[in-house]
Amino acid sequence: MARILTISLNPALDLAIGLPTLTLGEVNRTDATQLSAAGKGVNVARVLATLGHDIVVSGFLGADNDGPFRRAFEDMGVEDAFHRVPGETRINAKLAEHSGRVTDINGPGLVIDAGTFNAYVNDLEALAADPSRRPDAVVIAGSLPPGIEADDQAALIARLKAHGLPVWVDTSGPALARAIAAAPTAVKPNELELAEWAGEALDSDARRLAAGLRLHQAGIQEALISAGADGVLWVSQRGAWHATPPKMTVASTVGAGDTLLAGMLHGVLEGHAPDAALRFATALSAEAVRHVGVGNPHADDFPHLQQQTRVRRLNDVDAGGALA
Amino acid sequence: MARILTISLNPALDLAIGLPTLTLGEVNRTDATQLSAAGKGVNVARVLATLGHDIVVSGFLGADNDGPFRRAFEDMGVEDAFHRVPGETRINAKLAEHSGRVTDINGPGLVIDAGTFNAYVNDLEALAADPSRRPDAVVIAGSLPPGIEADDQAALIARLKAHGLPVWVDTSGPALARAIAAAPTAVKPNELELAEWAGEALDSDARRLAAGLRLHQAGIQEALISAGADGVLWVSQRGAWHATPPKMTVASTVGAGDTLLAGMLHGVLEGHAPDAALRFATALSAEAVRHVGVGNPHADDFPHLQQQTRVRRLNDVDAGGALA
Repeated sequence: MARILTISLNPALDLAIGLPTLTLGEVNRTDATQLSAAGKGVNVARVLATLGHDIVVSGFLGADNDGPFRRAFEDMGVEDAFHRVPGETRINAKLAEHSGRVTDINGPGLVIDAGTFNAYVNDLEALAADPSRRPDAVVIAGSLPPGIEADDQAALIARLKAHGLPVWVDTSGPALARAIAAAPTAVKPNELELAEWAGEALDSDARRLAAGLRLHQAGIQEALISAGADGVLWVSQRGAWHATPPKMTVASTVGAGDTLLAGMLHGVLEGHAPDAALRFATALSAEAVRHVGVGNPHADDFPHLQQQTRVRRLNDVDAGGALA
Repeated sequence: MARILTISLNPALDLAIGLPTLTLGEVNRTDATQLSAAGKGVNVARVLATLGHDIVVSGFLGADNDGPFRRAFEDMGVEDAFHRVPGETRINAKLAEHSGRVTDINGPGLVIDAGTFNAYVNDLEALAADPSRRPDAVVIAGSLPPGIEADDQAALIARLKAHGLPVWVDTSGPALARAIAAAPTAVKPNELELAEWAGEALDSDARRLAAGLRLHQAGIQEALISAGADGVLWVSQRGAWHATPPKMTVASTVGAGDTLLAGMLHGVLEGHAPDAALRFATALSAEAVRHVGVGNPHADDFPHLQQQTRVRRLNDVDAGGALA
């Protein structure tokens, strides 16, 4: 099992609100509300902890409402290395009406000043330099809070890489583009996020493969591109593979991408064969969409979901000489 | 100065969300969110603490998100005697769009089981029986959480009264009706809340006075009836008075009723002359509506607001023999 550090620079509390119907301008009564620790980094940590890894979670939390995070980290059995900053972690409200309509209300996050960010990066470097605490891999996931720019995150990636750490990144928009320029070990965009970087629609396997090869040429060792029911493309230094998940009835896609990243990192760190690693990660991501939350590798039918996941090597890529 | 216990059985965190416009079914981005300790009992405690009283705040808080309450109580300088229960205090969202439209989304609150409520009432009785901790007055304010019925609150009122404590109550609906039957020392309904109890519209000074006299006959020593810009009616064992506040530009009426109750309790406990007590409380409530939050007795122009508040005794009530 590996020791993995997850970094959530802009975590959120999710406030799930169920109500019969939402009438604007009125006082509405809810059926139930549920506040829970959220964010891509927390989801990735949850999957990896379930898979038996030794996890350190970090980033920035508001000191005034960290209770749900503390409780989640205890439940997950992970080490809490989040820096506390004055104030409150943002709360993202998700309003679900009985009709099925869902309205999201997302906040910008706590402002992180340069001094706070620098102190945090120094702590991460101390962790990387300490043989007793050094992680085997780092995952940076999610959006950036006000005060931290895409270039700041790119600089963080470069500093962690300079310490010899594999760095896996899941972000989007300008933060993804700047991250790619810093050549992290791995990125996991979905097709829309990668299309923004590529500057063209990635609406076919061929186009997604071409974009994956561009990532490879940019120095990304593991490019994981998710395209929903169209499956997962993996362009790595060992070759390129495509996986098609089993057909699932989708309950919630939130957490599926985080599950895919975590499942793949697990396979790579454990030294699994490439096709087995991709099959496992894709099936686990499929398991995630049929319910709220991340994928559960202990689901009774998970072996069956893996069997139903089709993986094929893209041999023509090798012929094209684009991959080493 | 007096020692006052406030009871909030169903407090809430207010999540104030500002956003340009709210589009249902979409992902909306907020300008800013602000989480703060809320509830009538907390507001009453805040005003009384500002007026120099020794305050103990109590009720039920979810253990997992009590940070904003702990911080507010520290800021207010009050003693925190809230019972913690597993889970989270409800979060009431208030969505304010740039257009001025405000949408409230209010949750039911934490379920309080009978054992938890009984343990709490026993603690309150121990407090009442301990000369070193016994309060001079008790305020019960706000709604009831799931699990506590209107009759449970009425029984609590009766038990506190049996200890010789003055009990002031601010609630509505069935909880108000049952509370009145238990004859607390004081109630502070607004005209709509009292109309529900009275079974008729209270759309004139005469009708409000008649309802106030019914409260007096039901054993309520201090009936404080707020009617917005139409002013405040006070039917007490010393007579009946009416106060008309100065005209204010209203920014928020939230907290105005709590300020009125706190201001009046202050005057009664301090032994102020009836007209002075009502003038003070009414002016402080008027001060509250011109901004978000409770009334500020230290506002520069507060003496002027008191001067502008007209108070008149309702002598004809005495002539009718309805008051002692």
